[in-house]
Amino acid sequence: MSLKFNRRELDFLLYEFLDTEALCAQPRYAAHDRETFDAIVDSALAVAGETFANHAAEIDAQEPEFVDGRVRMLPAVKQGLDAFVDNGFMGVGFAEADGGLQLPYTISQALNWVFTAANTGTSGYAFLTMAAANLLSAHGSEEQKARYMRPMIAGRYFGTMCLSEPHAGSSLGDIRTRAEPCADGSYALSGTKMWISGGEHELADNIVHLVLAKIPGSPPGTKGISLFLVPKYRLDAQGEPADFNHVVLAGLNHKMGYRGTVNTLLNFGEGGECRGWLVGEVNQGLACMFHMMNEARIGVGLNAAIHGYAGYLHSLDYARERPQGRPTGQRDPASPQVPIIEHADVKRMLLLQKVYSEGALALGLYGAALVDQQHTSDEADVRAEIGLELEILTPIIKAWSAHFALQANYWGQQILGGYGYTRDYPLERIYRDNRLNPIHEGTNGIQSLDLLGRKVVAQRGAAFQLLIRRMQASVEAASADAELAPHAQALAAAIEVVTGTTTKLGMAAAQGEVERFLANSWEYLEMLGHTVIAWVWLRQAQTAQRGLARSDCSAEARAHYAGKLAACRYFYRWELPKIRRQAELLSALDDSVLQMPAEGF
Amino acid sequence: MSLKFNRRELDFLLYEFLDTEALCAQPRYAAHDRETFDAIVDSALAVAGETFANHAAEIDAQEPEFVDGRVRMLPAVKQGLDAFVDNGFMGVGFAEADGGLQLPYTISQALNWVFTAANTGTSGYAFLTMAAANLLSAHGSEEQKARYMRPMIAGRYFGTMCLSEPHAGSSLGDIRTRAEPCADGSYALSGTKMWISGGEHELADNIVHLVLAKIPGSPPGTKGISLFLVPKYRLDAQGEPADFNHVVLAGLNHKMGYRGTVNTLLNFGEGGECRGWLVGEVNQGLACMFHMMNEARIGVGLNAAIHGYAGYLHSLDYARERPQGRPTGQRDPASPQVPIIEHADVKRMLLLQKVYSEGALALGLYGAALVDQQHTSDEADVRAEIGLELEILTPIIKAWSAHFALQANYWGQQILGGYGYTRDYPLERIYRDNRLNPIHEGTNGIQSLDLLGRKVVAQRGAAFQLLIRRMQASVEAASADAELAPHAQALAAAIEVVTGTTTKLGMAAAQGEVERFLANSWEYLEMLGHTVIAWVWLRQAQTAQRGLARSDCSAEARAHYAGKLAACRYFYRWELPKIRRQAELLSALDDSVLQMPAEGF
Repeated sequence: MSLKFNRRELDFLLYEFLDTEALCAQPRYAAHDRETFDAIVDSALAVAGETFANHAAEIDAQEPEFVDGRVRMLPAVKQGLDAFVDNGFMGVGFAEADGGLQLPYTISQALNWVFTAANTGTSGYAFLTMAAANLLSAHGSEEQKARYMRPMIAGRYFGTMCLSEPHAGSSLGDIRTRAEPCADGSYALSGTKMWISGGEHELADNIVHLVLAKIPGSPPGTKGISLFLVPKYRLDAQGEPADFNHVVLAGLNHKMGYRGTVNTLLNFGEGGECRGWLVGEVNQGLACMFHMMNEARIGVGLNAAIHGYAGYLHSLDYARERPQGRPTGQRDPASPQVPIIEHADVKRMLLLQKVYSEGALALGLYGAALVDQQHTSDEADVRAEIGLELEILTPIIKAWSAHFALQANYWGQQILGGYGYTRDYPLERIYRDNRLNPIHEGTNGIQSLDLLGRKVVAQRGAAFQLLIRRMQASVEAASADAELAPHAQALAAAIEVVTGTTTKLGMAAAQGEVERFLANSWEYLEMLGHTVIAWVWLRQAQTAQRGLARSDCSAEARAHYAGKLAACRYFYRWELPKIRRQAELLSALDDSVLQMPAEGF
Repeated sequence: MSLKFNRRELDFLLYEFLDTEALCAQPRYAAHDRETFDAIVDSALAVAGETFANHAAEIDAQEPEFVDGRVRMLPAVKQGLDAFVDNGFMGVGFAEADGGLQLPYTISQALNWVFTAANTGTSGYAFLTMAAANLLSAHGSEEQKARYMRPMIAGRYFGTMCLSEPHAGSSLGDIRTRAEPCADGSYALSGTKMWISGGEHELADNIVHLVLAKIPGSPPGTKGISLFLVPKYRLDAQGEPADFNHVVLAGLNHKMGYRGTVNTLLNFGEGGECRGWLVGEVNQGLACMFHMMNEARIGVGLNAAIHGYAGYLHSLDYARERPQGRPTGQRDPASPQVPIIEHADVKRMLLLQKVYSEGALALGLYGAALVDQQHTSDEADVRAEIGLELEILTPIIKAWSAHFALQANYWGQQILGGYGYTRDYPLERIYRDNRLNPIHEGTNGIQSLDLLGRKVVAQRGAAFQLLIRRMQASVEAASADAELAPHAQALAAAIEVVTGTTTKLGMAAAQGEVERFLANSWEYLEMLGHTVIAWVWLRQAQTAQRGLARSDCSAEARAHYAGKLAACRYFYRWELPKIRRQAELLSALDDSVLQMPAEGF
């Protein structure tokens, strides 16, 4: 299977919708320009096409096996990851001083797009390692960076994040893994961690587990959690992997999808001592982890968007090639059939996929661009403001994208009919892979509680108000364009609906009606999410208008811009009005859910 | 895995919501009463629990294989089907004179519920055989009935339906399979059929394929299609299976789900002559097939509802047993955790599953009851009227149920979090199995065109108007109940919205705007479907009110009725209002989809 990709869409989002090149004015990225960005994307497309796309279906059909306490998997996975490492992609976002390429986070997310579209299972090992190295970069000691982070950036060691336990997924305050202080300043870890992706394999010389655990005597709940670096093999005096550290594979999880990335149950300290080293301060483990959570959740939202978009491209090809049926009104059965893209309902299914997945891609990459701006701005005020915007956008990027890009896959599969239900076409696999995204990194339900219960109300609504101002600025700018003015008005009206609803909810909470305030949080996330995506579509339409106005606009570009404008119109007509019903329910503090007696189910 | 079933819900729907017992007043069912109905359900629950539920996960993991031109599958499938046949279930709906049990269609659909909930893959062979025998019962000659139908009812032969071809799924007029007349009155079949469930196996002594094909010289399109009976083995002089009839297995389809039912590509007439016998009249093949289509599509809608409900019950158990997190406002991390059913967002996900799946079950069984009434009524007027109601309800039963009961499975999986993504729990399998329903027996898109383009407008809207009258009658009846009156008002308003929208659409069509009239047919199906399901929920609520008023109402029954009332309220608050946005789009003859240029995708 070759890699299906739309380079034009990527370029549109990176260089027209976003101004990624502008980052090159910052000292951190001064060595780069559009040319180096393009070169690395070209290189990623080549490597992903050759060594990732080639085994995407195969690793789904032949998932990793647990054999004699080890994980056995297809050799193609290691071949792909070796090529990834050899081409320097593991270091894409890291400092040159640490062996990285020092590229913006936005560009590393563009590469995420390329590799995930090619093969999400094999990509998983790489992106987990980058996330773990990133955490060490922010919170690790100099020694930890030298001994563990740099080999991870070089691709010699891989990494994991160990948060959940079999009895504690959403409720991390209830974890039981213990870390007993040892005389040499290290800790002895004991406990079981669940859902650990990349928890055991022989793809790298070592595996660096970043583990949440409790030091005896620490406070109950989330305030008593610390973060530990726990290697699979302890390092010897030369800093090379040596003795086994008793991180024992207890079992593999057999999943609906994402089968290429091994997912494990790990016992720490089984059959011998398992040593770990504190990362950051005692009892600050969750804070360290959450410091990286925005990026991790932007990654999940983008992963969902990438799957949504990949399914869209596959179903688009099918719709263009499959002849079936005749135009409405053509009653001559001997007349030639038309490609199904000419049927209105097929167009609808393509449009839905387009608005959901391109909307989610644009929003996720915008989030990535905010991360870059936050990291590079000289001004503390600007950094704080961007931080606020990221706080409120993150649960939307994660949960809205996971929910709706998965719906996109449903419609893509539907376009292929019976073929979409077979494993001969990638749609059903893409759906199964993407199905993870509403669940992991905080379920979508948890995201909606985080959004309404924390992010919206924090600092007296500062983040919410900032987001509203950002959207209003786009309304003003778009109002000047006659074609976009109706959309701008619709967005302005939506902003009013959302603001009014949020005010009513806030007042209810202030009066102590906390349960009713939070009862419909998922509807709130959908409502604010649809408004934010409408904003993103308006900005894409503005970008398209600017492109169309250029004298050198090619026919190909013109068609792409026209598609953006038609998709924007579709989103405003078909999707944005959905928020009114949600606003009514939320404003009324509807308690239908609370009124349902548990024994009535 | 034991069979998870809610007998109380089945009894509520059969004997309270519907009056299935009343059918016993008809001569055809005079031998039966509530006791015999209950006995066969008891027996089905026992057989399904012992011989179907036991291998449901196993046949998903080890799907049938193509070995040396034959299909190899787990022995448990044959063991289950033998038990099914030995207990007489294959004959449940057929006349005693033909070896059947002569039970109403509604009861056979109740058994469908039991066996499908236990194991959809193994059940598939049985229900396909019953459908094929049913078609022969309606259109076969006496000889065909004696030689083929009766052995099918006895479970000695199994059956299939062969409609699609690799290049023709939705567009049956374009099939290419040929049937050349032979001197002895039979036909020589040649061609390839795709997506044939149960197309090859060794579960029975013979397989009776009912095949659509074209006789040379017949008109193009759907008017030139005839129906043929094509056995795997021709019968000898004694009427026993003898010579191979050259129906050759060309391959198996490897599917996302429904893996227990083998799905095949068959070559008719490969390597030797394949003889078939005409069923019904020449060129009336599609009419014969469509005669049974209402029942087949009610079966698909119920199958979807059954999967939706099965997932609901599994996620309900999990929600009641899994402790995680604490009530809103409880900030002491040392306080005990609560079962997740106490969290509002989990309740919401349970309620959504409940309203979608119980709504679809109630609607599907109501459709089955209409089939029974149509078959048993002495009055031609009544039969015609019921026929009209079935015509308009069938695409809704099929497509609405397939779409929304699948969404129920999405939410069920979400409740289980990471566990819902593993193959250790049945939710992910139930989703994959259920995913077929929006695709087969006419895709949901095709159903929406059938609904708006044919059923709504046929006979100057007679079926539509009848449906409206039926709903209005319920509005009137429910208005007398103070608790239900607000819902009755809401349904009355919805009926007005739907009627107004339909009128506008009809006028546009009358003015020749056929493309815009049909462009948003899926939205129309969702709008009318939600209104119909609101009607069904109102009637369930009325039934619950009657139950609560009985002096002998048990505590268990009281809780069940209270759940029905709360679910009805939830549907009216959260779901029914969705039709307003759809009505606006449809009334405006929105052309956003048509405006999208194909090259803009």
